[in-house]
Amino acid sequence: MSGNETSELRRAAVLVAGSWGTALASVLAVNGFQVSLWTRNEEQANEINTKHQNSKYLPDNSLPENVIATTNLAEALSGAEIALFVAPSGAMRQVAQAAAPFLAPETLCVHATKGFEEHTLKRMSTVLAEELGRPASSIVVLSGPSHAEEVIRKQPTTVVVASESLAAAEQAQDALINGAFRVYTNNDVVGVEVAGAIKNIIALGAGLSDGLGFGDNAKAALLTRGLTEIGRLGAVMGANPMTFAGLAGVGDLVATGTSKHSRNWRAGYMLADGTPLEVVLEKMVMVVEGVRTTRAARELSKQFEVEMPITAQLYAVLFEGKSPKEAVESLMGRLKTHEIEPIG
Amino acid sequence: MSGNETSELRRAAVLVAGSWGTALASVLAVNGFQVSLWTRNEEQANEINTKHQNSKYLPDNSLPENVIATTNLAEALSGAEIALFVAPSGAMRQVAQAAAPFLAPETLCVHATKGFEEHTLKRMSTVLAEELGRPASSIVVLSGPSHAEEVIRKQPTTVVVASESLAAAEQAQDALINGAFRVYTNNDVVGVEVAGAIKNIIALGAGLSDGLGFGDNAKAALLTRGLTEIGRLGAVMGANPMTFAGLAGVGDLVATGTSKHSRNWRAGYMLADGTPLEVVLEKMVMVVEGVRTTRAARELSKQFEVEMPITAQLYAVLFEGKSPKEAVESLMGRLKTHEIEPIG
Repeated sequence: MSGNETSELRRAAVLVAGSWGTALASVLAVNGFQVSLWTRNEEQANEINTKHQNSKYLPDNSLPENVIATTNLAEALSGAEIALFVAPSGAMRQVAQAAAPFLAPETLCVHATKGFEEHTLKRMSTVLAEELGRPASSIVVLSGPSHAEEVIRKQPTTVVVASESLAAAEQAQDALINGAFRVYTNNDVVGVEVAGAIKNIIALGAGLSDGLGFGDNAKAALLTRGLTEIGRLGAVMGANPMTFAGLAGVGDLVATGTSKHSRNWRAGYMLADGTPLEVVLEKMVMVVEGVRTTRAARELSKQFEVEMPITAQLYAVLFEGKSPKEAVESLMGRLKTHEIEPIG
Repeated sequence: MSGNETSELRRAAVLVAGSWGTALASVLAVNGFQVSLWTRNEEQANEINTKHQNSKYLPDNSLPENVIATTNLAEALSGAEIALFVAPSGAMRQVAQAAAPFLAPETLCVHATKGFEEHTLKRMSTVLAEELGRPASSIVVLSGPSHAEEVIRKQPTTVVVASESLAAAEQAQDALINGAFRVYTNNDVVGVEVAGAIKNIIALGAGLSDGLGFGDNAKAALLTRGLTEIGRLGAVMGANPMTFAGLAGVGDLVATGTSKHSRNWRAGYMLADGTPLEVVLEKMVMVVEGVRTTRAARELSKQFEVEMPITAQLYAVLFEGKSPKEAVESLMGRLKTHEIEPIG
């Protein structure tokens, strides 16, 4: 009997053990899954398995005991009902490539990474589909306003899972939903991925504005324009405009642009006083997706001929030495009269 | 010559001397207007005229010397190029009634009040048009993310002025715009007024959520749903949906829902620990528009048969003794599976 019960354990794999991956592993574990959390770092795996802690990425939080870390990809993916890819955008292709040989055809593939691939400018679901040899329509993306620090503490959180396949989205919803973690479905993969990526740029800008001592009025204006900028790129890439009014759009933008939990906001805040980018990035333990995304988004704005003023100013600050003050002032705009509010 | 110069002074009147009225009087004064700030309170008028301070509403700020307070309405409105109505929504009709006899036909009428009239459920521009005997199309509404405390300190702020008459909106824009105070035009009076009113309810809810110790994820979800709720009521009242994606919509919602400057947010925060409404209102020096608006919006939601869950829960907390915790938990929703994100 007990052997039978063991074989009925629902298994999930999460790749990799950053803060968001660890928080999502915790959600799956709370929901009864036996979770394999894959990491390349032996020391981190040991800490998770012996102390049930991931002190580098989520200090002061305990992980459920049914989150087991492993450095062995074959082991991590073996028998997994769901594989959750949460690698930084710059590592996603490599992680997918490494995972592909061990992935059973029936394993649902979900990702929760916000960014584009740097040189190809591809969305994460495209990268996954290519490397896993699956149709893009089978991939699910999870996004929305969800600081990992709050999710692991079971503070109420609401996210969306989007897929061209409603069945796939619903399977992800079923696996992840619980009383504190509410999951809605959506079919607009492009919109959800574009919103998740670009909002990190806007959050950098919001941090810059706050760091320069501009107030809440200025930040609200910046976030509003940011939403317009997200919508503009999304529209030419084929997104549903309504997505930007939802959790993955305005919801995530607000959470990232107004919370000190956000590392993109924090990076912007540090840049404001003239700290060089390299120093800021060194000080941040985790990847600041917004920096890398700024480069990709600038390319996309050229490619699709879309005006993206916040992205352009951030690019100038990050990579061309423009002073943050000048950049934010450019964004607040010069004195113009007779201008109609630009929306959409 | 000097008599001639005096007669060429551009004059503006602002009614009344609350925090927002005082901040806007200051903007007009910076722009070169001779500003009459009307108040019924002699003591307040004296303080403004002798100390250039309005210590009750905007402590620690100096007003320009060309803001002159008066308790005489005829004097306040005499020769005014623009009359700015910034009375609390509950006093707007009375103030307009009192002002009507002294208002020259060529004076532009602008209001910057966020709320509905309580029993008639009328928008502020309608109330003004009725009492001033002017077509509603001639009235301008000013709105957007604009904490008075930042505007008076010349921190960068962006607002919209909306009117059915583009000429009227542009006249308001010309009078108010300067380097720190950017003004865009818009023609959607209904959308701007509905967004400005309802966002105060959502801000109360955001304060409640923060006061209960829910995190930034929950608040972002609440604000996102709030935007949906605003859009839903706005749509049936004839607004342009795009307005809600702009400064008067998402911009103001973010500024009010995430800033400690917001008295609606503060009122919600105090309510969270069980402080009775009367005590909260007594502690706030200023009018908490969200409280009154909750009652009006609930009526509007019935009248137009629009679902407004946040308004309904806030109503239950404010007027029916529902516990804040239960209300916010209802808003976060019970565990439902297979639900598609409700947008718009």
